[in-house]
Amino acid sequence: MPQFLSSRDADFEARFTALLNAKREDSPDVDDTVAAIIADVRARGDAAVIELTSRFDRMDLSPETLAFSREEIDDECEKVGDADRAALVTAAERIRAYHARQMPQDASWTDPEGATLGWRWTPVSAAGLYVPGGLASYPSSVLMNAIPAKVAGVERLAICVPTPDGVANPLVLLAARLSGVDEVYRIGGAQAIAALAYGTGTIAPVDKITGPGNAFVAAAKRRVFGKVGIDMIAGPSEILVIADRDNDPDWIALDLLSQAEHDESAQSLLITDDAAFGQAVADAVEARLQTLERRAIAGASWRDFGAVIVVDDLAEAAALSNRIAPEHLELCVADPEALAEKCTHAGAIFLGAWTPEAIGDYVGGPNHVLPTARSARFSSGLSVMDFVKRTTMARMSPAALAAIGPAAETLATSESLQAHGLSVRARLDRLNEDTD
Amino acid sequence: MPQFLSSRDADFEARFTALLNAKREDSPDVDDTVAAIIADVRARGDAAVIELTSRFDRMDLSPETLAFSREEIDDECEKVGDADRAALVTAAERIRAYHARQMPQDASWTDPEGATLGWRWTPVSAAGLYVPGGLASYPSSVLMNAIPAKVAGVERLAICVPTPDGVANPLVLLAARLSGVDEVYRIGGAQAIAALAYGTGTIAPVDKITGPGNAFVAAAKRRVFGKVGIDMIAGPSEILVIADRDNDPDWIALDLLSQAEHDESAQSLLITDDAAFGQAVADAVEARLQTLERRAIAGASWRDFGAVIVVDDLAEAAALSNRIAPEHLELCVADPEALAEKCTHAGAIFLGAWTPEAIGDYVGGPNHVLPTARSARFSSGLSVMDFVKRTTMARMSPAALAAIGPAAETLATSESLQAHGLSVRARLDRLNEDTD
Repeated sequence: MPQFLSSRDADFEARFTALLNAKREDSPDVDDTVAAIIADVRARGDAAVIELTSRFDRMDLSPETLAFSREEIDDECEKVGDADRAALVTAAERIRAYHARQMPQDASWTDPEGATLGWRWTPVSAAGLYVPGGLASYPSSVLMNAIPAKVAGVERLAICVPTPDGVANPLVLLAARLSGVDEVYRIGGAQAIAALAYGTGTIAPVDKITGPGNAFVAAAKRRVFGKVGIDMIAGPSEILVIADRDNDPDWIALDLLSQAEHDESAQSLLITDDAAFGQAVADAVEARLQTLERRAIAGASWRDFGAVIVVDDLAEAAALSNRIAPEHLELCVADPEALAEKCTHAGAIFLGAWTPEAIGDYVGGPNHVLPTARSARFSSGLSVMDFVKRTTMARMSPAALAAIGPAAETLATSESLQAHGLSVRARLDRLNEDTD
Repeated sequence: MPQFLSSRDADFEARFTALLNAKREDSPDVDDTVAAIIADVRARGDAAVIELTSRFDRMDLSPETLAFSREEIDDECEKVGDADRAALVTAAERIRAYHARQMPQDASWTDPEGATLGWRWTPVSAAGLYVPGGLASYPSSVLMNAIPAKVAGVERLAICVPTPDGVANPLVLLAARLSGVDEVYRIGGAQAIAALAYGTGTIAPVDKITGPGNAFVAAAKRRVFGKVGIDMIAGPSEILVIADRDNDPDWIALDLLSQAEHDESAQSLLITDDAAFGQAVADAVEARLQTLERRAIAGASWRDFGAVIVVDDLAEAAALSNRIAPEHLELCVADPEALAEKCTHAGAIFLGAWTPEAIGDYVGGPNHVLPTARSARFSSGLSVMDFVKRTTMARMSPAALAAIGPAAETLATSESLQAHGLSVRARLDRLNEDTD
């Protein structure tokens, strides 16, 4: 059974704070290993990548077989059944339609002083996506990472996905094809991140790397950050459901379990204004756990990190939600829009009981790569914005420089940056000469 | 004298690549020291901050005097002369007007399936700005960091600025006041970053920390990243000027020197299609270096990292510029807008000879916190976007769930995430019951 908390309990604040600060992840320190792998790939390129792939994935590759050929991808895609194919197409279309609306706009205007100002957005030239192998090789993650990149206009999009013992996931390759991915490499781990960041004889370097991965991949991403851009380093998944008594406890139980089944470190929280309903949900979770395929994982997550929190009213629920800043927030209440107004820190909000979080993982349209570990206080989920960058633009007319240049000169002088001031002064003097 | 390169030289590619990869900064490894300071501040709060401030800044503070009082800020602001005050007001107004246009828009729409989708932007609740003390204590940086935060709607904005030996910079305090900063603490270094990230008895924790700093501050920001958001870790400043022969060599020389005077590690590059003009600029730099106040710094930067690159035409200049991805790009050519179209990777572009880069440092309006070290390939300057975060929103009608839910169930099954599928299936079954 998970923890039960009531906001009326004397020790509530202490227990809630402990819940917030619970250390759910014990990352092994693999930094030295990763540093050595990166150095090796930088020094020896393809040869290092091939050797490491042989060691870790038990596959013998050559520079010619690092990438899947078009025919190999064709063959893998052929293996996907009709239902899976149709579902992937639906997901890809909906994700593309949602992200297409995120393209930011350029701007340009001329102000009263005669300064023409603005900005311009341009895509990152080349991006690399990491896709884990094995159990966590999710085709949905390929869509969620690749489609925003292609919507942004990224010209060259490369995927690295390890294929241990040569076994590929056909759905991953079909997802890559549906997303418009340009290159797919059958490599993984820190060596794949190093190859994307620094390039090898065969793999050209990229400018930005996104996608989930194990501790080695995460450590490698941290290390190459600066040389290339990276997305967030995601922690274990979380859901907070705020539900009133007018819900089916089984639906809410399944929503909680759909996070818990990801990972023993996942966290599923329920806040309700009805203690009896909270108990009913907990009972429904136990019932479902009897038969759930991943009951070992989901059960451990629910037991160790799950909680049912009883509050007096929904305003209190919103205040607690903002302290949690959940990755996923489900609002199963009579007026979810009104409650959402008060929930200002969350990665994604799912409104109403007909919107299970799992819809957002696949086909809703919004991205499922979202800020974890309370980072929704200051960061956002993956989007088109992660694959574009802004250049600010300024053009002064001589009149504009005459109007605002003296203030720049004054401030430069205050900051003891003489050349800054002189670069303005030389031009202002010319204007004065011309006027004389 | 700086390097002279010509794109016609046989060794051009090698020399240009060497220029791109020149290691300009030798960061001391202060990570262990910083880790100890952060641990100390987390353990002992105010007491640790006060002790470290006494040791490093030779100031004895108490919890009551960590922050400047309103009266102390009044007194410091009184010391600012009229010209400086007016210049700061002009800068603040122009920066505010520019950044006000950056506020992103919320969106909400209902698609044909009956899914209501969208997103919502909300400000970070609390932000902290670091302002270096001593020589690099720039009031313009206060404006550039604080105004976007306040435009974004950040409710609580705290500044930390060390005041070694108790000496404050009145312009910094006036800039803070003009920007609407809520709290100003007279502390610096890694201890200030730790206090902002974790809080102390006196200083409440923030959600995001921005602003420049020395190696200790940068290492501390890296360490608290995750607990809070941070802006980029800026490297030494850079400028690339692309100029044709129809320019005054002295103007271009001053623009190059206005980066070089920042730091011996700064880099100033000129690309021109006229070798004689390139030589004239280099001569003008030497002439100005005779009398420039910061000639030791600017001279070292120009000698060690400066370069004049001669190309055949402006298209070639744009291609090289994109490989450099400069922080600042000045286009002093007949048609700067046309050239700017081709220059896709740059932090900020300054169009035409009447737009010296120094205008952008102070009063142009765009932000002067910009991506360095080639990171303009994948990142953008500071903006309102750094102080807001996006929450995606989704609401399914029962009809929408009926339309797209089965695809989600199919993909969940493919990914062996049974509870995900069941959370959708339980609802679809209810719909089917209701229809029966």
